[in-house]
Amino acid sequence: MPIKMILDCDTGVDDTMAILYATLHPEIDLLAVGSVWGNVDAPLATRNSIHAVEMCGRGDIPVATGAAGPVNQRAQDIAYHVHGRDGQGNRGTGRPVGPAAPGTAAEQIVRLCREHPGEVEVVAVGPLTNLAIALGLDAELPTLVRGVTIMGGAALAPGNVSEVAEANIWHDAEAAAAVFNAPWPLTMVGLDVTMRTLMGPEHVARLEAGGTIAQYQARIMGFYMDFFARESFGRPLSCMHDVVAVAIAAGTLVPTLAPVVNARVDSTDGPGRGQTLCDLRGMYMGYPAQEGAHCRVVLESPADFGDDFVDLLVNAGDAAIDVSEPA
Amino acid sequence: MPIKMILDCDTGVDDTMAILYATLHPEIDLLAVGSVWGNVDAPLATRNSIHAVEMCGRGDIPVATGAAGPVNQRAQDIAYHVHGRDGQGNRGTGRPVGPAAPGTAAEQIVRLCREHPGEVEVVAVGPLTNLAIALGLDAELPTLVRGVTIMGGAALAPGNVSEVAEANIWHDAEAAAAVFNAPWPLTMVGLDVTMRTLMGPEHVARLEAGGTIAQYQARIMGFYMDFFARESFGRPLSCMHDVVAVAIAAGTLVPTLAPVVNARVDSTDGPGRGQTLCDLRGMYMGYPAQEGAHCRVVLESPADFGDDFVDLLVNAGDAAIDVSEPA
Repeated sequence: MPIKMILDCDTGVDDTMAILYATLHPEIDLLAVGSVWGNVDAPLATRNSIHAVEMCGRGDIPVATGAAGPVNQRAQDIAYHVHGRDGQGNRGTGRPVGPAAPGTAAEQIVRLCREHPGEVEVVAVGPLTNLAIALGLDAELPTLVRGVTIMGGAALAPGNVSEVAEANIWHDAEAAAAVFNAPWPLTMVGLDVTMRTLMGPEHVARLEAGGTIAQYQARIMGFYMDFFARESFGRPLSCMHDVVAVAIAAGTLVPTLAPVVNARVDSTDGPGRGQTLCDLRGMYMGYPAQEGAHCRVVLESPADFGDDFVDLLVNAGDAAIDVSEPA
Repeated sequence: MPIKMILDCDTGVDDTMAILYATLHPEIDLLAVGSVWGNVDAPLATRNSIHAVEMCGRGDIPVATGAAGPVNQRAQDIAYHVHGRDGQGNRGTGRPVGPAAPGTAAEQIVRLCREHPGEVEVVAVGPLTNLAIALGLDAELPTLVRGVTIMGGAALAPGNVSEVAEANIWHDAEAAAAVFNAPWPLTMVGLDVTMRTLMGPEHVARLEAGGTIAQYQARIMGFYMDFFARESFGRPLSCMHDVVAVAIAAGTLVPTLAPVVNARVDSTDGPGRGQTLCDLRGMYMGYPAQEGAHCRVVLESPADFGDDFVDLLVNAGDAAIDVSEPA
């Protein structure tokens, strides 16, 4: 039985990978997508999410628009410098897409979890605003989900916004604190693994030799890889961030080290704001059990996942819509 | 030329190792010791420090008493559960020692650095209270030292007081913030290496077969190793914390990875209090230079340093004073 999944994302380049993977993979039943501000603004995230499911001939998957900013209502920057002004590396199609689903992304989460109690894995790969709002809408949500998996945080690895804070957590630390405190099974897929799970020029070349879905993915990755070349790696490599979280949530990528520990978020205005404090003090003893712990922190996973992702996209053939660049 | 060193310590078990190493090693010219609260109270730290130099026949090395608590004057716990009620694993000699040097440990640091400008490495292996007070006494101190090396903090490794805070920093986060902010060359020897530089039963056996200095060290280590067996490793191993910092300061132990980066201390009352935030975001690119950075963060060093330490103590022969246990 494929895993029922709701994907919550701020659809930039790697979110697009995540949607394509979740839509195409036979072991995932993607019930719905919610959009959120972050890499791009929420309406653009909605548009890009609909575009991605339509590419796969799955325009029937509902995409609901979510929060436009963090729960504390502070102004926030949008990461256009990473994902391009269109969130597709400035090489999207720009074409109109079908309509968004009615209601908000948070309401959609609550409704679908109520319809399928205990069955839905909620995977959030942007700021956690929608999940925090959903917790506010329905206090029983933690008992209704199968689990929650996030792309976000950094346990032992450095942060990417500050020395210790990862962007998705930092952008809405108050929402993230709520998500870490809620008593649901939480899987944190953070920079510890996502900065080590990479695609490079050889993956891009394989995508370019595939059908139009794979070719589209290859095309939008250039801008994103340039960012990582400049900021992180000194050469063109692409972090697979969001799609790693989707695959771990689905069990199609199996972590090799992922202790269940107590974890909390620094939501002060101190230098540690946005840090995920994971209690890994047991590392020298093989991580003995911790009372009340419900956060599985992924510390190691197979680094060659890029090959699986490319296989899936190449085998998917051509897109159901025209994905050529505008003239 | 041996390196001129002032050692500032809260003399428990591993501080005793550090004093013995600094006193006995031919490449170190130990000018003075200052004591500070932490593992034990400051007067007991003074007594244990004098006892250690007297063991080596070096009762001429001045030992000055330092701060009794943190700069913010809050009450603090003393780590008797780690080091024993006598700071010597409950197996010290309990014998009277010679007098402490006049003045405070902070004044001693300032005076000696003024006497030997540019020559003195100040090595602090307890809470950084004395160093912060010394900075308050003499604003030019950063230009007068050769450098400052601390045992404290955690960069990528977990903390030991909280998820992210190491004890020496956490015990006086305000003092530590001053020490990290002052523009001197700072070397941070934290849990990243000290939790990986261990002595085990085989080292103890070699010490027991040595003279009375080595035998004394072996004797006082039992309580300390029991603590680490219980709390950290599940078997009797001893972290060499403080002596690792002394050896790295002296250049007798050479780190294999120690980038110079910006670093600051969380002195808020948030969950990250006492964390050393080291900017290691450049790790994927070989740590490119950072403007204004003056903190060398030791991330890796040879783990077999315990052998060198045992060699030094075994070769030192018998203590200059009677170190037998009281009847």
